[in-house]
Parts: sequence; C-alpha cells; structure tokens
Amino acid sequence: MHSVQFTAQSSSDGIVERDFAVGDIPGVLWSPQAGSRRAPLVLMGHGGGTHKKWPGMVGRAHRLVTAGGFHVAVIDAPGHGERPRTPTDEREVAALRRAQETGEPVGPVVVRYNAHLAERAVPEWRTTLDALQRLPEIGAGGPVGYFGLNMATAIGVPLVAAEPRITAAVFGLHWPDALTEAAGRVTVPVQYALQWDDEHIPRASGLALFDAFASPEKTLHANSGPHKGLPRFEADSAIRFFARHLGALV
Amino acid sequence: MHSVQFTAQSSSDGIVERDFAVGDIPGVLWSPQAGSRRAPLVLMGHGGGTHKKWPGMVGRAHRLVTAGGFHVAVIDAPGHGERPRTPTDEREVAALRRAQETGEPVGPVVVRYNAHLAERAVPEWRTTLDALQRLPEIGAGGPVGYFGLNMATAIGVPLVAAEPRITAAVFGLHWPDALTEAAGRVTVPVQYALQWDDEHIPRASGLALFDAFASPEKTLHANSGPHKGLPRFEADSAIRFFARHLGALV
Repeated sequence: MHSVQFTAQSSSDGIVERDFAVGDIPGVLWSPQAGSRRAPLVLMGHGGGTHKKWPGMVGRAHRLVTAGGFHVAVIDAPGHGERPRTPTDEREVAALRRAQETGEPVGPVVVRYNAHLAERAVPEWRTTLDALQRLPEIGAGGPVGYFGLNMATAIGVPLVAAEPRITAAVFGLHWPDALTEAAGRVTVPVQYALQWDDEHIPRASGLALFDAFASPEKTLHANSGPHKGLPRFEADSAIRFFARHLGALV
Repeated sequence: MHSVQFTAQSSSDGIVERDFAVGDIPGVLWSPQAGSRRAPLVLMGHGGGTHKKWPGMVGRAHRLVTAGGFHVAVIDAPGHGERPRTPTDEREVAALRRAQETGEPVGPVVVRYNAHLAERAVPEWRTTLDALQRLPEIGAGGPVGYFGLNMATAIGVPLVAAEPRITAAVFGLHWPDALTEAAGRVTVPVQYALQWDDEHIPRASGLALFDAFASPEKTLHANSGPHKGLPRFEADSAIRFFARHLGALV
C-alpha cells in the first residue's frame, strides 16, 4: 500500500502547494492555508498533451481552493508530464500529429488513445485516492469530486463509474464513442460542458454523451464558440456545482 | 406619452416594492432600499396563466434585487392578472383547458396563443420601458436586461429582437415554431434554459430554438427533469449572467 510522499512545498496567497508521489505517480496537492482543517477533495485531471501544473490547471486549482475551500489533487496522466512514454504513447502521439498536419479528423485517434490511457489511469487514480484519504486533512469517508475536461473526461467517466467514493463530477468536451457504456453506470450528479460550435466534436456527439449519463441529476452547459473557447466563467460554475454537492465555503 | 404612476408602496428586507401603472398596463417595480441610486434594470415576464406577483416572480425579483442590486419590473401580460380578457383570450384559454383534459399535446395551442399575446405585449413592454427610463433611479441609456421563461420567452424573443435598449436576455422552456425568425435577429448575449426530459417540448425543439439565436455569445443550460422541474439554482445563474452583462454588485 503506497502512501503520499511529499517532495516539495510552497505557499502563497493563502494556498499551500505540495508536490507528491504515490509510488511512481507524480502529483500536486493544493490546499487552503489552514492546512489541518478537513475539507472536501476535488480530483482534477489535465487535458491531452499537458500536465499537472499546466497554467489552466493551476488557475482552476487556485479558484477551487480560494473560492471553494477544497483540497485539489492533480496527477500526471500516463505518458504525460514527468511520466515516461511507452511505445504506444509514441505511436499514438505521432498519429495525432500526422492527423493535425494533414487536416484529417483527429477524433478517431483521440478516442482510441484516450481509451487506452483511461485503462492505465483509472487504477492509478484509485491508488492515489487511497493514499490521499490517509492524510489527516482529507480523511477517509469525506466528500470527493472529480473535475476533468477533454482527455480527463475520457479517464474520468470510467473512473467515476468504478469509484463509489466520488460523489459529483464535472466533465466535458469529448466524443461519446468509447464512453457511452461507462456513462450509463454513472449515477452521481454530473455537470457537462460542450462547445456549440466545436470544430472537432460534432454537436450531436456531445449531446449523446450528456444523454448517456444515468445520473438523475445532470446539467449541460453548452456555450457558443469553438473547441478551445470554453468561457472562463465555467470554472466558477464548476466550483458552485461542487459546493452544492460536496459542501463547502461558497 | 405615458409616465409611471405609482399606486402603492411597501418595503421589507431592504427591498422597495412599488405597484405602478403605465396607461392601462399594471406593473410592479422592485428596487434596492437605497432608492435613488442608479442601477441596471431587469424586465421580467411571467409565465402563462400567472401574473406579475406570482410567488415565482416575487422570489426571483427579490433575489435579483438583493444579490444583484438591480431594479426589477414585471407587468401583467395581456389577458393575465389585472388585465381584462378579450374573446380571443377566452377562446384560447378554453382550447388549452380542453387539450389538457383530453391529454392532447398542448404545444399547438400554446404556440399559437403565445404568438398572439406577443403581438399585443411587445408594444406594451416598449411603452413601459420608455416610462421606466424617465424615473431618475433608472434613467435613459442605462443597462437593461430581459428575463422570461415559458410564455415570457414567446413575448421576450420578439421584444429583444425589436428593442435595442435591451442588451442581455435569459429565456427558456419554449417551442421554436413562431420564434425562429425573431431569434435570428437577436444578437445580444443570451442564456437559454431547457429541461432535458420535458414532456411537452421535444428536446430537438428546445435545442433548435437555442440554435436559432444569432447572438455570438450564448449559453444553453439543460437540466434533467420534467417541464416544471427547472432547478432553483438557475435563478442564481441568471443573476450572475445579468451581473456579467449589465454590471452589478455580484
């Protein structure tokens, strides 16, 4: 059984940032300055081609800590950030680059590679959650949410379907193809973001994935604009969603 | 040119409520207690079969005043509240009751009657706005929003299409049939609410109306549940939308 090994710590603006490892999984935990207070935990996944400290992750994590009072944990996905790449990773990244360069649809490559990454990432998230819940400021049995768009939806949907400790989730911006079956096993409250004018994901595909969630309580936020145009106010909306379902300061 | 005639005033919890008439149009204006301070105005429409002081209207108005710092004006729609009913009103209300009693779809009656009401209501709203903007605490040239679901969307879409003083609108829960053309002339930011499991309005119809808005900036909020199941947090979401676009306290 792995425990959380903290490797670095810094703090500013009321936020404590601690790098950690759980076995060979590198992560970062952002927490309110009042470090020993119990607070809900939000697991946050990063998008494809980025990593745990990508600026978008840091920004969302800071908002979740300061506005919501949450602990926020992000780990590097397999083949991303500090993680080594396998031959499969190299092959799929090359296939994605080729599709981008030739102007072919990226969907088939992204769907296939993300499904492969999810198989590797789901057990890693569960091991990480086991270890995080042994920290006194998180604890076992406390509320846990999951927040992940793009590739982090491909990983998060099967994770939330398998993991009863996660009781609310924000997803978005993905194809339904490899996720419909797992979405049908998700019953916790879900908020789903899609871009109405997404140039990669057909509108009907985004709507189909939202429709597939079995959750009695689910909300779709569709905004005008392209794939990368998700409005910044959706991050605040996610915080309020977690505050409603996990309980927090907001 | 009609001016606002105030007919009654009361106040509680930091909110001033003033009944008014503009010609033969009865309305109510809710304002922050600090009455002479200029603040954005939200015009709010009530749903079919209700009136300007229906509990849902009062509740939303109070939230808009206390959380957003707005002035909120609601008028009785033609044939509703204190307004007399014409023979057309009587005939259409009877047709609606028959459809409800026999279990036939209400959509065709509602679409037809609401389109008729909109023709009467749009000039009334514009006259009311003229008069309200001559009040010193509102003023000409200040920000104006429109908030209306159900029948108030049927009235509001052509109103916002015609009225350049309205610069942001929240709509929802209506069929597109008689509204698509006017929605194509709406270019201000729009937030649209629909119920994913609406038993009256087919899902594709709600999505088609959202799609029809020409607004470069638009957001769809689709929630699981039946026609009358709109979650209460959507009222707070509307307040934040108006705060972003009209400027306010939030």
